[in-house]
Amino acid sequence: MTEKNVTLESTIQALVQAKRYTTLRDILVTMNPADVAALFGELEVNALPLLFRLLPKELAAETFVEMETDAQELLLHGFSDSELKDVVDELYVDDAVDLVEEMPANVVKRILRQADPEKRRMINEILRYPDDSAGSIMTTEFVDFPPNLTVEDAEKRIRRTGFNKETINTCYVTEPGGRLIGAVSIRTLLLAELDDPIERIMEPNVISVMTTEDQESVAQMFSKYDFTAMPVVDGENRLVGIVTVDDVLDVLQDEATEDIEKMAAITPSDKPYMKMSVFGIWLARVPWLLLLMISATFTGLIINHFENALSACVTLTAYIPMLMGTGGNSGSQASVAVIRGLSLGEVEFSDLFRVVWKEFRVALLCGLTLSVCNFGKLMLFDKVGLSVALTVCLTLAVVVLAAKMIGSMLPLLGQKLGFDPAVMASPFITTIVDALALLIYFQIAVHLLPI
Amino acid sequence: MTEKNVTLESTIQALVQAKRYTTLRDILVTMNPADVAALFGELEVNALPLLFRLLPKELAAETFVEMETDAQELLLHGFSDSELKDVVDELYVDDAVDLVEEMPANVVKRILRQADPEKRRMINEILRYPDDSAGSIMTTEFVDFPPNLTVEDAEKRIRRTGFNKETINTCYVTEPGGRLIGAVSIRTLLLAELDDPIERIMEPNVISVMTTEDQESVAQMFSKYDFTAMPVVDGENRLVGIVTVDDVLDVLQDEATEDIEKMAAITPSDKPYMKMSVFGIWLARVPWLLLLMISATFTGLIINHFENALSACVTLTAYIPMLMGTGGNSGSQASVAVIRGLSLGEVEFSDLFRVVWKEFRVALLCGLTLSVCNFGKLMLFDKVGLSVALTVCLTLAVVVLAAKMIGSMLPLLGQKLGFDPAVMASPFITTIVDALALLIYFQIAVHLLPI
Repeated sequence: MTEKNVTLESTIQALVQAKRYTTLRDILVTMNPADVAALFGELEVNALPLLFRLLPKELAAETFVEMETDAQELLLHGFSDSELKDVVDELYVDDAVDLVEEMPANVVKRILRQADPEKRRMINEILRYPDDSAGSIMTTEFVDFPPNLTVEDAEKRIRRTGFNKETINTCYVTEPGGRLIGAVSIRTLLLAELDDPIERIMEPNVISVMTTEDQESVAQMFSKYDFTAMPVVDGENRLVGIVTVDDVLDVLQDEATEDIEKMAAITPSDKPYMKMSVFGIWLARVPWLLLLMISATFTGLIINHFENALSACVTLTAYIPMLMGTGGNSGSQASVAVIRGLSLGEVEFSDLFRVVWKEFRVALLCGLTLSVCNFGKLMLFDKVGLSVALTVCLTLAVVVLAAKMIGSMLPLLGQKLGFDPAVMASPFITTIVDALALLIYFQIAVHLLPI
Repeated sequence: MTEKNVTLESTIQALVQAKRYTTLRDILVTMNPADVAALFGELEVNALPLLFRLLPKELAAETFVEMETDAQELLLHGFSDSELKDVVDELYVDDAVDLVEEMPANVVKRILRQADPEKRRMINEILRYPDDSAGSIMTTEFVDFPPNLTVEDAEKRIRRTGFNKETINTCYVTEPGGRLIGAVSIRTLLLAELDDPIERIMEPNVISVMTTEDQESVAQMFSKYDFTAMPVVDGENRLVGIVTVDDVLDVLQDEATEDIEKMAAITPSDKPYMKMSVFGIWLARVPWLLLLMISATFTGLIINHFENALSACVTLTAYIPMLMGTGGNSGSQASVAVIRGLSLGEVEFSDLFRVVWKEFRVALLCGLTLSVCNFGKLMLFDKVGLSVALTVCLTLAVVVLAAKMIGSMLPLLGQKLGFDPAVMASPFITTIVDALALLIYFQIAVHLLPI
């Protein structure tokens, strides 16, 4: 894919320089908007306005939606009012909303001025919904019928509206007040008798979401029910919009990326990694590093406190990294498993005891395995004394047990208290387990060794 | 959602005991198959065969698909041959393939015996494709037309085939030899003149994938192009199946879960966490813990090696956890950012130098910030000597730099060499950085301190 674009890119560059505009247009119209946008992203910015003007209206609008924010802004600045109007007219409402959310205020004003009043009203309505809610990702372009419409009239109405193919696969049936009472797929319409009323062929049990529903749980419902679109209703069950599966794909990707970033102690960002500035990356990472560095000093305090014990038996120091490392890894295995389960809706707070009981048994098995292996290694290779070996292995088993208990409980408790469970992942678990591992180590050492 | 099912569950239980089968049936037919399956999952297993027999054929098959593997197996064992045939007849080919892949051999034999020859052929064909390939997630149920068919005949043909609504939104146009030459959406069909040939209204630039394409890159294409279905072709560009967006949602979720598990040093599993046995979890985790434990002993060896330096200046020991911790966190921030970028197709091996240069500058900024803060803390709170403070802070800056370099390079190099980059995440980075942090620490200490 990329290879192909690279060659294409140089061809396009050459054609631009040779001013072969007809040829350029012929090439571009065969391409998918996402590919045109990717190609434009590789070209020099000063060629963009010219190339963009070569595109037919619909392809231009669809390409515009797929472009990076900075290229969009550059194009918008160069647009005349009528060119801007052409693009805005072709944009679907949800894409227009995304654009408005990303552009600076003066550009937003120009966009809204060019949008026709109906579209402006729709954009403003969606902007009202909180970020990450079903309302904020829905589109208000859908087809709805009254229940007594005939199939023939319904088909006529679809021909008239001419929304895009994706929002039309399912049409909805609403009562006069706007309440959602049914859904009908375009295929059912196509197979029905022309004089049937919609009422008779509609599916009356429609699963819908509220405008305020979190986008992540909307995405879970799509993957549970295998939907390609889902109606969004207000508090009175009135149909206000639909969420389409293409936006859900993005939500799933974004939510997974967010969880992964939080688990690695990075403040999540909407921008792709390669597009982020060095300063932006620093800002997303350094607060967590500072926080974790400060927490790690507690571990240092514990070592200070047991300085005498350590000088009495310096061999003990050599096993600190192994004990802390294994504890941290054991803890993050448990916490990550639970956090992902929470994200996927497979684990809930009410499962707390089942989760802890499960992790308890896993921890006993893991602790035992690791201790036995380590005991062999200590006696055969390191040739330490029996009491040191026992101290290290007993600590190992206890640390693994404690780490898995903490790792499995913290995300669940955190979520219950209203924190994001993903933040409870590896780095924090590791810091807590590090300190705990040392305390356990020294307590066991003081009892088993002559120090 | 869950709350509602819990109440419903007790109602259903009561109705089962009261043998109110008509009422039960009336309730179940109003529900979505996914909800019926979730409800069945909560009920006692001995009530399942009875309840399942209450469902109408189509709902029964759709519910069956959504159920957990163990419940499916239990039901299959109780089925008579004709009941089994009813379910298998209603299954879509891709769902039948999923079932066949999860059931034990004797059950598979019974299933294939009940499938009609055409479906059996389709199932076997899909089973031939490697795991995680486009071929393995496609369905062979699609509608294709010759280019010279009229719109009227095309609509008739759709009515005749009666595949499900999802696979019918886009139909494909193939030459006599089976080569894919176009696509036509059902909406275009609906809007076209009845005597137009398909050729005239089809979209000739169809984006397709090969059967051997990795499912993750298929998913990336869906999210790039906003498709709801995508044609799958063989080496000669002959149409052999389609991938639908509902399967892509599952692929995205599974791939993200897999990455997250690998990053936490867990062998990925297809089963949800709550369904895994304690032994299964142990098996997925303990090999990594063992491997990491053994690697951590190198860190121990380094400490042993510098035992004398440590006894000369025991204060140094107190800062080991902070240095190792901060190094590990810095490294995993970089590696996780790069790994996620690779998964999303935002970063490629050819970006290596841009990535490293970016991380180099981020590391300088982060290292500087952390060192300055830490220096203040060491001088003001810990009241250590200037040379100890300098040793610790200089080490900190160098460790952060090294960690981010290694963290950003390893996943890229790993992928180039054919390893899974996600395995290069936190735990391995941490282990490497731990050892490195100590080496740097002692080298700097030996030069700056009188030891």
